[in-house]
Amino acid sequence: MQIAIVLFDRFTALDAVGPYEMLSRIPKAETVFVAERTGPVRNDSGSLALTADRTLADVPNPDVVVVPGGPGQDAQMDNETLLDWLRTVDATSTWTTSVCSGSLLLAAAGLLTGRRATSHWLALNLLEQYGVEPTGERVVTDGKYVTAAGVSAGIDMGLTLVGRIAGDEHAQAVQLLTEYDPRPPYDAGSPEKAPAHLVEEFRVKNRFILT
Amino acid sequence: MQIAIVLFDRFTALDAVGPYEMLSRIPKAETVFVAERTGPVRNDSGSLALTADRTLADVPNPDVVVVPGGPGQDAQMDNETLLDWLRTVDATSTWTTSVCSGSLLLAAAGLLTGRRATSHWLALNLLEQYGVEPTGERVVTDGKYVTAAGVSAGIDMGLTLVGRIAGDEHAQAVQLLTEYDPRPPYDAGSPEKAPAHLVEEFRVKNRFILT
Repeated sequence: MQIAIVLFDRFTALDAVGPYEMLSRIPKAETVFVAERTGPVRNDSGSLALTADRTLADVPNPDVVVVPGGPGQDAQMDNETLLDWLRTVDATSTWTTSVCSGSLLLAAAGLLTGRRATSHWLALNLLEQYGVEPTGERVVTDGKYVTAAGVSAGIDMGLTLVGRIAGDEHAQAVQLLTEYDPRPPYDAGSPEKAPAHLVEEFRVKNRFILT
Repeated sequence: MQIAIVLFDRFTALDAVGPYEMLSRIPKAETVFVAERTGPVRNDSGSLALTADRTLADVPNPDVVVVPGGPGQDAQMDNETLLDWLRTVDATSTWTTSVCSGSLLLAAAGLLTGRRATSHWLALNLLEQYGVEPTGERVVTDGKYVTAAGVSAGIDMGLTLVGRIAGDEHAQAVQLLTEYDPRPPYDAGSPEKAPAHLVEEFRVKNRFILT
């Protein structure tokens, strides 16, 4: 089993590493970070670089594809090399997945048309332009397409997929080893729960990053 | 404000990237990954590499220090270059922190003697050898020392520290932007909650990784 995680300039680090930490613990799975070119790929703030070990062309038929999001996703929406690769690998993948605004790339590739999907709460309404039905759920499974909400939701998606691929007991073992028993010190993790003025402020700015 | 996150061979990726994703969103913070040498540093499974942009020597007085854990922590326990650096930076840091078995490195450097601290549940008892009082809590603050339990607990630690450094409202904004409203699909994230036979199996193997 091969799991490919896509990188592009100004991706959000946890979008990629959250699912990575779960999925890479599937028995006998090979997990590989892919990008247009091999080498370091910088994240949204520029202070983190993850290495792409293979080019997109090197990895033509992964079993699982993970597309992260982040401020850099915008610049990829008309990147035909990436969109073509997504369409090609989707033809043979078992699971095609995204985190955060990564679902917009799947949508732009035409892979989510007529399906239910989610995205970062600030990007959710953009899915409709591509004929996708947005939902506010944290992890949405529609056929082989699994999309997660913003950033940290990729961990829940990853663990959900570990269960589907390797069974509930293995997923519980992964959860135990990663001590995934979250205790956020605040309760502001969704637009429904956060202080209304913060939600409003971000909707007006329409940006994913704090500056 | 400068935040230094330490990398070493065979670290666990989410130990570093979880707190990174929270702490790097502190206003005007410079976040930097440091290691003995600059360049890519491979994680526990070898399939992920994060770039160390600066050497330890390049970063002599960060305000916040974050030490991740992982299977590679063992090999660092007598690395005097790293332990000396930890003692040096601790002399001027505002916060000295760890995730997972990273607390054993702080303990080996003599920084936690007589203090309460936590670690990965499989490493908790090892803290006592260094005169540290282990606790099963997810995030432990004792003075300026903040230690987190295994792997994913670094996210809770990071967000807790964002609140201490930048205030509750900014921390809530970070939680909202990262949609940190976790919904694990299982409830096996601690030795108290996981199926007893899984806990026992890992205690016998005494390994952090599934193979």
